[in-house]
Formats: sequence, structure tokens, C-alpha cells
Amino acid sequence: MIRTPYLLFLGDAPDPLAAKVAQGIRDWRPDFCVGQLRLPGCKADMRLPDMTLTDARAAGAETLVIGVANRGGKISPAWTEVLVAALEAGFDLASGLHTLLRDAPALVEAAARTGRTLHDVRVPSVEYPIADGVKRTGKRCLAVGTDCSVGKMYTAIAMEAEMRNRDMSATFRATGQTGILITGDGVPLDAVIADFMAGAVEWLTPDNDPDHWDLIEGQGSLFHVSYSGVTMALIHGGQPDALILCDEPTREHMRGLPTYTAPSLEVLRDTALGLAQVANPACRVVGISVNTQHMSEADALAHLAEVEARMGLPAVDPYRQGAARLVDALAAV
Amino acid sequence: MIRTPYLLFLGDAPDPLAAKVAQGIRDWRPDFCVGQLRLPGCKADMRLPDMTLTDARAAGAETLVIGVANRGGKISPAWTEVLVAALEAGFDLASGLHTLLRDAPALVEAAARTGRTLHDVRVPSVEYPIADGVKRTGKRCLAVGTDCSVGKMYTAIAMEAEMRNRDMSATFRATGQTGILITGDGVPLDAVIADFMAGAVEWLTPDNDPDHWDLIEGQGSLFHVSYSGVTMALIHGGQPDALILCDEPTREHMRGLPTYTAPSLEVLRDTALGLAQVANPACRVVGISVNTQHMSEADALAHLAEVEARMGLPAVDPYRQGAARLVDALAAV
Repeated sequence: MIRTPYLLFLGDAPDPLAAKVAQGIRDWRPDFCVGQLRLPGCKADMRLPDMTLTDARAAGAETLVIGVANRGGKISPAWTEVLVAALEAGFDLASGLHTLLRDAPALVEAAARTGRTLHDVRVPSVEYPIADGVKRTGKRCLAVGTDCSVGKMYTAIAMEAEMRNRDMSATFRATGQTGILITGDGVPLDAVIADFMAGAVEWLTPDNDPDHWDLIEGQGSLFHVSYSGVTMALIHGGQPDALILCDEPTREHMRGLPTYTAPSLEVLRDTALGLAQVANPACRVVGISVNTQHMSEADALAHLAEVEARMGLPAVDPYRQGAARLVDALAAV
Repeated sequence: MIRTPYLLFLGDAPDPLAAKVAQGIRDWRPDFCVGQLRLPGCKADMRLPDMTLTDARAAGAETLVIGVANRGGKISPAWTEVLVAALEAGFDLASGLHTLLRDAPALVEAAARTGRTLHDVRVPSVEYPIADGVKRTGKRCLAVGTDCSVGKMYTAIAMEAEMRNRDMSATFRATGQTGILITGDGVPLDAVIADFMAGAVEWLTPDNDPDHWDLIEGQGSLFHVSYSGVTMALIHGGQPDALILCDEPTREHMRGLPTYTAPSLEVLRDTALGLAQVANPACRVVGISVNTQHMSEADALAHLAEVEARMGLPAVDPYRQGAARLVDALAAV
């Protein structure tokens, strides 16, 4: 568990997109964000107070979160200087970078000397069990996609926000680096040893109150040959009661696989539901989330109406329209 | 790659079943087996010459393979004494035990001193790539099961033996510890990091001659919630041209999952084939392998005839009947 609240480190981000982890935390957990720390040349701005390490500690910040993807995947000397100073000021550090904090000798030394913690959220920190398949109490929703990177995390976290607004009992369960940094907790599922994937998901979504919903962050796609095993483990370890189908209709081929095309929503529905019912025979598909960012408003609305009529399920773009209708569908389960 | 031939270490095996890894090597790779080394009290016998370390080295053995599962998962002092002496006599060591050779200081020290290699085949020794899904040349067959431990490895290795007898070009590709110790090479798939599972299978079964068949060792089951993600990665990373369905019809529930029942062969066929055709649209189901070890001969034959008629595919028990009819079906692809 990463201690909150955070000071968001934006480094020397060359453009706003480089700080998309920080943006995700800012958008979805504004109450976790005390301020931002920027180095000279930084082109990103979370519209949070610019703070020194000392200011941020005084304002209660516990962890400095690296909210930026750096150039070349290295931790530069300019960064190292700030990160060491943060440890000395009493911050823990959290990072989702490929380059691990624990592999930087200066940070390891400073953390040991100051008694602070380095959180590399790409690396599992728990010995997960083998999945036992035992039915758990509480309810679970999983977003499954026609492809990778179609909006599964966004959908789950938007649904959680809507459910909390309605005073429903709901928890977003992060399974990827960005989600873990947003929530401060989770399982970096793509880095788990194969035999323990489904067990890690069971661990992540334990028994809960009967009316509680876990919104489990999806990963990959059953139809993406590079990562489908991870998706499969989510479907069986997650024991979902409800599936949301996610699509990005303008993509010409599967992400990173130029000769593969995405399945239809019908094929996704039938395949995912059949497999999900192995672990939870009561599972059903309750709605469709479409990422229409590359469509005009008129085209998006026409497409959503067509999908909704064809599939007989609510079809929304939660970014354009909010997740209310998806939550209505969950509430009806 | 583990150097062959082997001296099989049977230790103080309390019964023949404890030496089943050695038995698998003895059954399927007799030409790899120079002899056996037994300690006082050993109740297993591979019907190989009993040899001292010196005898076996003189007979050409390169690697001492731990062919026995020991009590309590520890490497006992009696074992350690022999294993150190083996390293000093010029042997490499190979083990599929949960307790790793590399975690035994006496063995690490002796290996370093003698320049020998410790092979812990439960641990991947390669940095596998992310799967790219590119179609590979040559042909591939994968056994998929209604459950775990229904005879998928046995089926693949029996088919390879039959194909070699016919001078067909065929390679059994091991994906588990026993298979790796039998063949001296492979991928311990259940120990691979999630994101690299399918890539590890692609790596294991590279481009080959157009008439070459890889017989890929299956793992888990799409319907076994603990391990289905591993199976999924085999189906997509393996790009099989042919699937063999494997079943053990007397089992009352899924292995280790008392509340789960195995799917029918029809459900397995439809689910596995649909997913396999994502990676290889030409994939087809060519035959059925039934493990009838818990049935009488008459019951087994009646069951096989019923399955064959119902499914319209050759149905055999390769242990009772050999794998000839499954190979006939492959040859017709």
C-alpha cells in the first residue's frame, strides 16, 4: 500500500502526454494530490500548486509519485538529485517506470539511510496463491475488450466514480501500473508468474459485503495473441457477475499486430461470457463501452445508437456521456 | 540446453511413483540414459545398470538428473554428499524440484569450484520476447484437455515417437518440468512472467520446414480456473494447425477444484477451436485422446467407440492402443 497523499513529480516532461500517469491520478484521485513538482523545461501542468519538497511535506504529502515517463527509460542525474532529496525530506517514492527505483544505487542508499520505502509498482510485492476457484461473496464487474488499450481502465474507474456519487459500495481494483499509482494499491498482473495470475486476482478481490461491487481493471484481450493469457486469468480469477464489453471502432488492426483484426462485439460477447460462466454461472453481459475519441460527435452518437440496437444492451462512451447508464445496468443485476 | 546422456539419480525413493520423472526419461528417451544411481533403501528401479559416478562418467554420462521427488521438498544431507561428488566428478546437475539447486550453498560452491552447471528447470533461463503473432512456417499440434493432468504430455510424446518411427519430421516441445527433463530442453511455462507467456511459446516453436510438426506439450485447461491463462497462452503462442482433445472420463470433479465439473468434449472442442483460429484460421480438431487407466479394457473400448461415433473423430487411448491413429489424422492435415 502506497501512503497518500501524493506530491506529483512531473520532472522535465517534454509535453503533456508524457505526464499521463500524473494526469490520471489528478483526474481520478484529486484528493490524493497535494501539489506538483516541476523541473526547468517541464511542459506539463496538472493545475495543482507548484510546491517545493518542504512545502509539500508541510502540507501533509507522504509519497512522491513519478507521474511522468522519462526519455530513454533512464533516471537522469537531475531526477536523481530531486529523488534523493525527497527521501531525505521524509517522502516515500513510487514509480511505474520500466527502470526500477531499486536498481538505482543512489536511491537504494538514500532509502536505507532515511528509512523510506521505494515502490516499484511494476514488480509484484506479494507472494500470490494459486487460485482455488471458491465462490466469493460480494459482486464483481470486469471490462473485457475487443483489443488492448480500448478504454477498459477508464470505463471501470468512471463507473466507480459514478457509483460512489450514488452512495453505492464500490471499489476500483487496479491490475496495471497506472491504475496502481492512481489508487495506491493493486496487482501488477502482467508481471506476475504465470501459475499465480488467477490467484493474484482472487487475492485482489476478496470476500466482501453482498451489495459491494469490485470494478476490476481489465487487461489485454482474449483476442490479442500477445496478452490473452492475462485476460483469461482475470476472467477466471475475477469470477465476474457482470461483464462490460469495450470497443474502439476506428482501429484498423489489433494494437501491435498488423495482420490481426479485432472481433465483432457479438464474438467478444459469446466468447467472454462462455468462459466467465465457468467460474460464475450467473455472469451476464450488462453493457457496452465504446471509445469514440476518433469520431465526430454526430458519428459517435449514431454509432452508439446502432450498437445499442444491434446488441440489445446500453452502449455509451463514458468519456462523452458519463458512466451513468452502465451503472444503471449494474444496479439492475 | 541440458547436456546428454544422463545418469539418473533415484536417491532413496520410497516407492516407484516417487521416481516418476526418472521413469518418464527412461520410457521416452532410453538412449539418454547411461545408468542409474541409487542410495540405500531406494525402492525404485529403472532396469538400467547401477553405476557409480566414476563408472557413469567413463560411460559418457554428462549430467546427473534428479529423477525423484524427495520427501518434504528438501535436499537431504545424504543427497548433498552425492551431488557435490557428482559435480567434482565432472557432472552437471539437473533438477525439477521445488527446492532449487541454486539455493543450496554447498552445491553452488561446488559448481563454482568445478566449473559445472546447475540446471533448475522450474526457473526460466531465457528472456522471452513479447509474442508478435506472426505466422510461422512448419506445422504445430497442441493437446488441450478437459482438465489438468489428463494425459496431454503423454499424448504428445507418444505421437512424436510414432511419427519418428514413420520417418516423419517431428519434435516434442516441452513446456513443463518433466517434459524438459525428458528432452533436455523446453520452456517452464508456468514459471514465466505473464506478459511473456505467449512469446515464450513462439520462441519454443520457431519457423521450421513445411512438413515438420512440433508436438507442443499442453498445460492446464481452458476450463481449469487456476491455470487457464497458461493454456490460453499456449493456444495463441503455439498457433496450432491441429488440436487433440484430451479427457479423463472417470474424474468426478476438476483436479483440485471440488465444486467444478469438467466440460464435455463438445464444449472443449468449440471453445478451444474458436480461440485457436484467432491465431491460425486454418486450425482444426483432428482427434481425441482418452486416458482410460481407471476403466476396464471392455469399458475403455466401449467408451472410445461411443466417443468416436459421437464426435466424428478418431478416439484412442495412446497408452492402451498407441498413437498411430492420431498420427494418421495429423498426416491427413
